[in-house]
Amino acid sequence: MRRIVTLLTDFGTRDHYVATLKAVLLTINPALNLVDITHDIAPQNIQEGGFVLASSFQFFPAGTLHLAVVDPGVGGERQGLAAATERHIFVGPDNGIFDRAFALDPPRLVVSLQSREYQLSQPSATFHGRDIFAPATAHLSLGLPLERLGPSIRYRMIRPGRVVFSDQGEVHGEIIHIDRFGNLISNIEIPFARGREGLQDLQVHLPTLQVFTGPSTYEEAPPSRPFALIGSTGHLEVAVRNGSAHELTGHGVGSSVVVRRRR
Amino acid sequence: MRRIVTLLTDFGTRDHYVATLKAVLLTINPALNLVDITHDIAPQNIQEGGFVLASSFQFFPAGTLHLAVVDPGVGGERQGLAAATERHIFVGPDNGIFDRAFALDPPRLVVSLQSREYQLSQPSATFHGRDIFAPATAHLSLGLPLERLGPSIRYRMIRPGRVVFSDQGEVHGEIIHIDRFGNLISNIEIPFARGREGLQDLQVHLPTLQVFTGPSTYEEAPPSRPFALIGSTGHLEVAVRNGSAHELTGHGVGSSVVVRRRR
Amino acid sequence: MRRIVTLLTDFGTRDHYVATLKAVLLTINPALNLVDITHDIAPQNIQEGGFVLASSFQFFPAGTLHLAVVDPGVGGERQGLAAATERHIFVGPDNGIFDRAFALDPPRLVVSLQSREYQLSQPSATFHGRDIFAPATAHLSLGLPLERLGPSIRYRMIRPGRVVFSDQGEVHGEIIHIDRFGNLISNIEIPFARGREGLQDLQVHLPTLQVFTGPSTYEEAPPSRPFALIGSTGHLEVAVRNGSAHELTGHGVGSSVVVRRRR
Repeated sequence: MRRIVTLLTDFGTRDHYVATLKAVLLTINPALNLVDITHDIAPQNIQEGGFVLASSFQFFPAGTLHLAVVDPGVGGERQGLAAATERHIFVGPDNGIFDRAFALDPPRLVVSLQSREYQLSQPSATFHGRDIFAPATAHLSLGLPLERLGPSIRYRMIRPGRVVFSDQGEVHGEIIHIDRFGNLISNIEIPFARGREGLQDLQVHLPTLQVFTGPSTYEEAPPSRPFALIGSTGHLEVAVRNGSAHELTGHGVGSSVVVRRRR
Repeated sequence: MRRIVTLLTDFGTRDHYVATLKAVLLTINPALNLVDITHDIAPQNIQEGGFVLASSFQFFPAGTLHLAVVDPGVGGERQGLAAATERHIFVGPDNGIFDRAFALDPPRLVVSLQSREYQLSQPSATFHGRDIFAPATAHLSLGLPLERLGPSIRYRMIRPGRVVFSDQGEVHGEIIHIDRFGNLISNIEIPFARGREGLQDLQVHLPTLQVFTGPSTYEEAPPSRPFALIGSTGHLEVAVRNGSAHELTGHGVGSSVVVRRRR
Repeated sequence: MRRIVTLLTDFGTRDHYVATLKAVLLTINPALNLVDITHDIAPQNIQEGGFVLASSFQFFPAGTLHLAVVDPGVGGERQGLAAATERHIFVGPDNGIFDRAFALDPPRLVVSLQSREYQLSQPSATFHGRDIFAPATAHLSLGLPLERLGPSIRYRMIRPGRVVFSDQGEVHGEIIHIDRFGNLISNIEIPFARGREGLQDLQVHLPTLQVFTGPSTYEEAPPSRPFALIGSTGHLEVAVRNGSAHELTGHGVGSSVVVRRRR
């Protein structure tokens, strides 16, 4: 079977960078099935890259390899890593981009990509995606054991993780992503409110605004009024029916969000 | 042979939404050949999605499946559908997005996607693309009969269809799409003027402007002067050589267009 | 093995144009592996298309076909061509888009695409990508000899080529591409300075500005100060750490660049 490699980068789609990654992957393993997650992560925004990866990787079948390159420290001291969890393999810089994914699916083995044998000859200082990460991914897809790529390391979480609201307390989180529709997606998860159940007994606050919590679908919401719902990833988000919550509220990545139970 | 699934959505390419669709498709049928039509339909613009789908689907080989998700009514009362025409299969919301395609290629069977058996467990209220449409598409690609997905329904056209100018009369149409080059594409088709034949004996009017009708290629047009031609889909469009008709004329989606024979 | 076809166009990703190309390719050869280089070349910017193609094609495996369509002269007098080099095949308009690629990898045979037999019936005047170039590419991928597509022609370079700085002289070049990160990429190559070696003994000038030449990686550069480095394609570029050199300097495509040895 053709193994799947997903690609997530901040390279954009105007340049040759993504094609070059794919060329290196297909030169080593022509049978790969390459699937773009996105190349439109805001330049050097590790947190956003980590969120989008964590939101999608678990839907891919067992054995999928995930190549993620948002890498402002390229050429500096950060290491490159490859990691295996129970069902997936991850390759990219050790800068926190995998924190959210590993919180959902903990790695069993993580190695530092130090073996020159599986890199392009003469790696550049500015494009480890092409010279180190893509070759490592392609060789792993052919069955190379992880240990051959370098020494085992202990993974340390670098970025703040998930925030879970589970009972009568109050939690503080923040907006971590604005999606294409202008929805403000927070790092707060509210497991008991998934699916069709609403948030009616909760209060949701943005800095200058208490957000309406009635509807559980976009269709049920009144126009032009920001409302909170549990989005398709299980995260609390603020949306506006047929509009952009980002534009209407002026809030964006980094804005604080507070959730508490209504008295 | 690997079956082709095309994807057309308004999800954009910044988020995890498209990747998640593809992950669900490939989990059910790993042999699929996924081809993006576009994910940049203006958010919730069903008319534009229908136009782009209708402009491209007929070039795909027989047996191709087309998954189209522009779905402002998700979670509300609109149904999901799967439809088979003589050569193609379509899956998506029953909101008019397939009207133009079905005008060109009428469906033989349309079903409402009510069978829970072929949905992800616990479908969300906000992402039927992932939970209902992608699984239906993937199961159909494996040979599942359409009837297994739900009861047969009668398809009703919802959106205005094509406008054809065929003789000495006058027709009124409108701009339905602005392409990347700023060309204004109308819903008016002029079959006898396809290919190299010009529109010299016709008058073409935008609201404030009679449009020049001499040239049949971009090369032949004078600079900076909007001209009408029959584009590669057979639709009347207004273009500017090496420029944007959208910017130069100020007209866009919804602007009226009138065509009449010169006396 | 599935043969790879790369696609590079200025069609954007909002319209049906790219999907239609792919549909035509897959109808003729369903086993193709299609890889997008980019569809976001600035409309009708042949020079930019040529740069992005030349920066990526050599990483693809032998036998890859490259379909490039940036074609402001479509329907006019420019010819279509197919060309074979030692390892690659190229198909597109004969307007200079292949100049940079052919400077790196000279063609052994170039033909003019005049045979009607391998075109869609009734080619349009505005979309040779769909009607002529895609069918030619797909037939070549199935093993059709190049000569069957039309008569052999002599390739003439149309656009200025590479500029190489190799010793103590002074060279004048220009900015040919702004990448996603705002890096200003020039047509000047400095072979001896590739990899980790710096440019410390050189002076690099933009029109209003002497550019700092200390660092060899983004990490080593001071913030907010434009610096020159040799990018991953071997071209001299001007960058700003965690910022956009394009925005900070106000320079873009066409700006002149001078390199000379420090005394």
